[in-house]
Amino acid sequence: MRQPVEFALGFLAEHVGGEVRGDTGLLIEGVATLQHAAVGAIAFLANSRYRRYLASTQASAVILAEAELRHCPVDAIVVKNPYLAYARIAVLLQSEPETSAVIHPSAVLASGCDVAESVAVGAQVFIDIDAKIGADVTIGPGCIIGRGVTIGAGSRLMANVILCHAVEIGERVLIHPGAVIGSDGFGLANDQGRWVKVPQLGSVVVGDDVEIGANTTVDRGALEDTVIGEGAKLDNQVQVAHNVHIGAHTAIAGCVGIAGSTHIGSRCQIGGGVGIVGHLQIVDDVVITAMSLVTGNISKPGLYSSGTPLGPNREWQKSAVRFRQLDDLARRIKRLEKGDEK
Amino acid sequence: MRQPVEFALGFLAEHVGGEVRGDTGLLIEGVATLQHAAVGAIAFLANSRYRRYLASTQASAVILAEAELRHCPVDAIVVKNPYLAYARIAVLLQSEPETSAVIHPSAVLASGCDVAESVAVGAQVFIDIDAKIGADVTIGPGCIIGRGVTIGAGSRLMANVILCHAVEIGERVLIHPGAVIGSDGFGLANDQGRWVKVPQLGSVVVGDDVEIGANTTVDRGALEDTVIGEGAKLDNQVQVAHNVHIGAHTAIAGCVGIAGSTHIGSRCQIGGGVGIVGHLQIVDDVVITAMSLVTGNISKPGLYSSGTPLGPNREWQKSAVRFRQLDDLARRIKRLEKGDEK
Amino acid sequence: MRQPVEFALGFLAEHVGGEVRGDTGLLIEGVATLQHAAVGAIAFLANSRYRRYLASTQASAVILAEAELRHCPVDAIVVKNPYLAYARIAVLLQSEPETSAVIHPSAVLASGCDVAESVAVGAQVFIDIDAKIGADVTIGPGCIIGRGVTIGAGSRLMANVILCHAVEIGERVLIHPGAVIGSDGFGLANDQGRWVKVPQLGSVVVGDDVEIGANTTVDRGALEDTVIGEGAKLDNQVQVAHNVHIGAHTAIAGCVGIAGSTHIGSRCQIGGGVGIVGHLQIVDDVVITAMSLVTGNISKPGLYSSGTPLGPNREWQKSAVRFRQLDDLARRIKRLEKGDEK
Repeated sequence: MRQPVEFALGFLAEHVGGEVRGDTGLLIEGVATLQHAAVGAIAFLANSRYRRYLASTQASAVILAEAELRHCPVDAIVVKNPYLAYARIAVLLQSEPETSAVIHPSAVLASGCDVAESVAVGAQVFIDIDAKIGADVTIGPGCIIGRGVTIGAGSRLMANVILCHAVEIGERVLIHPGAVIGSDGFGLANDQGRWVKVPQLGSVVVGDDVEIGANTTVDRGALEDTVIGEGAKLDNQVQVAHNVHIGAHTAIAGCVGIAGSTHIGSRCQIGGGVGIVGHLQIVDDVVITAMSLVTGNISKPGLYSSGTPLGPNREWQKSAVRFRQLDDLARRIKRLEKGDEK
Repeated sequence: MRQPVEFALGFLAEHVGGEVRGDTGLLIEGVATLQHAAVGAIAFLANSRYRRYLASTQASAVILAEAELRHCPVDAIVVKNPYLAYARIAVLLQSEPETSAVIHPSAVLASGCDVAESVAVGAQVFIDIDAKIGADVTIGPGCIIGRGVTIGAGSRLMANVILCHAVEIGERVLIHPGAVIGSDGFGLANDQGRWVKVPQLGSVVVGDDVEIGANTTVDRGALEDTVIGEGAKLDNQVQVAHNVHIGAHTAIAGCVGIAGSTHIGSRCQIGGGVGIVGHLQIVDDVVITAMSLVTGNISKPGLYSSGTPLGPNREWQKSAVRFRQLDDLARRIKRLEKGDEK
Repeated sequence: MRQPVEFALGFLAEHVGGEVRGDTGLLIEGVATLQHAAVGAIAFLANSRYRRYLASTQASAVILAEAELRHCPVDAIVVKNPYLAYARIAVLLQSEPETSAVIHPSAVLASGCDVAESVAVGAQVFIDIDAKIGADVTIGPGCIIGRGVTIGAGSRLMANVILCHAVEIGERVLIHPGAVIGSDGFGLANDQGRWVKVPQLGSVVVGDDVEIGANTTVDRGALEDTVIGEGAKLDNQVQVAHNVHIGAHTAIAGCVGIAGSTHIGSRCQIGGGVGIVGHLQIVDDVVITAMSLVTGNISKPGLYSSGTPLGPNREWQKSAVRFRQLDDLARRIKRLEKGDEK
């Protein structure tokens, strides 16, 4: 067990490149929300929706931007990016239980797998032959590591993660429970109405510092590899089809589906539930709002959307009926305009 | 093994607060659909789509509403809510194999976990330290119970359920295979194009009588807890992000995604594939139709929708093209109207 | 370990019913993409998007259609369906590690289960009582096979597949990691605001030659069975609700959700992320584009769509606002037309 930790406000400010407004010696022992913080905690204001909780906060200090300072009733750390500063301070203050580098007796390691001494392997794990597990890796309970898989140093697999054969995981990768990496792509050729399976001969390469959410699936490539670039972050229940490339530092929210052979650039942000069809090219720095469907290449950075706005069902029904008549309506407008010209 | 059960029609009617039309002594030994029932079975009519099967049913009796009675060729139980009555009678008649309170020898229970004597633990299970499992809980094969988890009396986890550390499960909760409760929320702060992970320090609190579907994921809160209210029902492949609150008795169909910090009221019904963006407030008694996207607060109960109707692709294409021209079309209508005024 | 394999181009052409243009004795030892092929490999051209790589390919031969032959700089196999021919040749050339018919010592087989001698059972598996596993079945590590399950000859379950009690799997079925077959359907009856669980008494019947993707869920029927027809192919993260019937040779892409009691015909193709509401009938040979929502019966074969096209957010916003005004716009057009008539 780790000791409870506390830090002086001045130390924390320096840690995040911010400035203290108030008592630099104030001791902080935890993080909390503005609404529910107690004495000793530091809170943060990063989203204006939560400003209403600032005046009455019981936090000992708040991380915020310069512009919000005048509303702040307590000591503060002023920074440009309060959410980032909060993240850094929360890491400092968290007291996660340490995992010891033990191989649980119920884990099964096949012969010929190469597991560094500092690796922790949980209960009910299976590691198949020729797997190669780097230093300081943690493999949670129930994980299945296929033959020939490699996992880079410092990576952590939570419970029940499945890595299929030959998958390559980089360093400091974090994979949440139930994720499946390296399942067969959906490759089918049609033979007079019947489907013939196309062998999926590629693998998956996951770059350093990637995070993959719970029950997310990443299929292996058909001939080459499916690639998740360095620092990319995938939320829960994302589906990545075969041969997809996801660029570095791209963030993909929950329930997104990306069809085969599509390439997504770096630093993109894909909203929850977005669908992207196959064989597309999307450049760097594209942002797509929730539940949009992407059916063509995107060649310019920017913010993209599809869909219709939510409304009361009765009003929506009227619009939906008219949507079907749109071409007719447009032609009637044209006809009216021609009449006008007469 | 349980004995086959049979009940008199009168007994069943009394059990559901209904009235017999016909022979109260008729023996019923099972439930079935109108179409495929055999002698001895009771069927039900709750959806008018299936009325066409009533006249020719081979069931010995049918549960239905008063208004349908005149079409019914056999004995009946008349009730206001035939589906509810059917549910109650099906529970009575089902002969589920009993599970005995045994801890399978292949299960691993870490030291310091507190498992009530009446708990059944399946094969290949792992229960981590400090977990506390209440009376009459069933933990199916392959489940992973994290450290410090609590599970209330009478709850049942089917196969391969993952409860991450410190998750709190109420009483009589039912969790289906592959569900992951308490995975890290998708908390990321951006540092000049790179993502910094925000520690997820909260947990998940699941109320009494909740049901959670197969491969559904519920993330732990960032600072406080993600909360699933009493009696809420989540179908398969639902994604609940960090800090979400789901009100009591709210039902959420399959493939719904709810983004972070959104609060959903009580007794809501969320259709399949709906997306709800983050930081929203949705009041009680809201019903949302399938695959709608909710992007703003909903402050009045009622039925809400978004999307466009399905059509043959050729016709849909025409409407889709015109959708892009909508603003132009609207301006042209305005111009025509001005011309008219002249 | 299998020996590396190589085949003469003439043999391969005969195997797929194609014609060689070039050296029938040319030896081929693997498959590759046009872009990245090396000497000794055969590539294919099935999608015109990739024609640009044909002229510069380093492949020793290419599988293609007659019409593409004039662009091909190397030997070729000419066939009508190059993708199908490629699939057949890839199967021939793949060198998958063979699994031996061993029951891993960490697997647990309950008493009374009937496992053919040629069955391979992986580590950490649990097979419950009365399960019946046919010849040459492979059960991957971490799978849970419920009581009374039957699995037909030659089927393969990858890691962590869950088959709930009494599920029936046909022959040569392939199920990918994390799939859950036979979880309870989402059956709820409302009792004055509270949900009462409806027992799910049916099962799931999966036909021969079906493939089911990673983390896909198929619920058991409420009273009768959920049915996946022969040769149907389901991608990852598909959700199939209770009582659904999927016709033979129907292909369903990732993230599709199908609500309860809907029947889908044979040879349909359902695009990624499509939602289909409950109690519908969809005939054979229907194709639905990605992320469409189906809310009514489909009685004619053909291509169907819903949704709106993606655009830059600013332009989309304008259309979205106007979508809400559509009924008003249509009425104003009508008024203008009446004015014209005057």
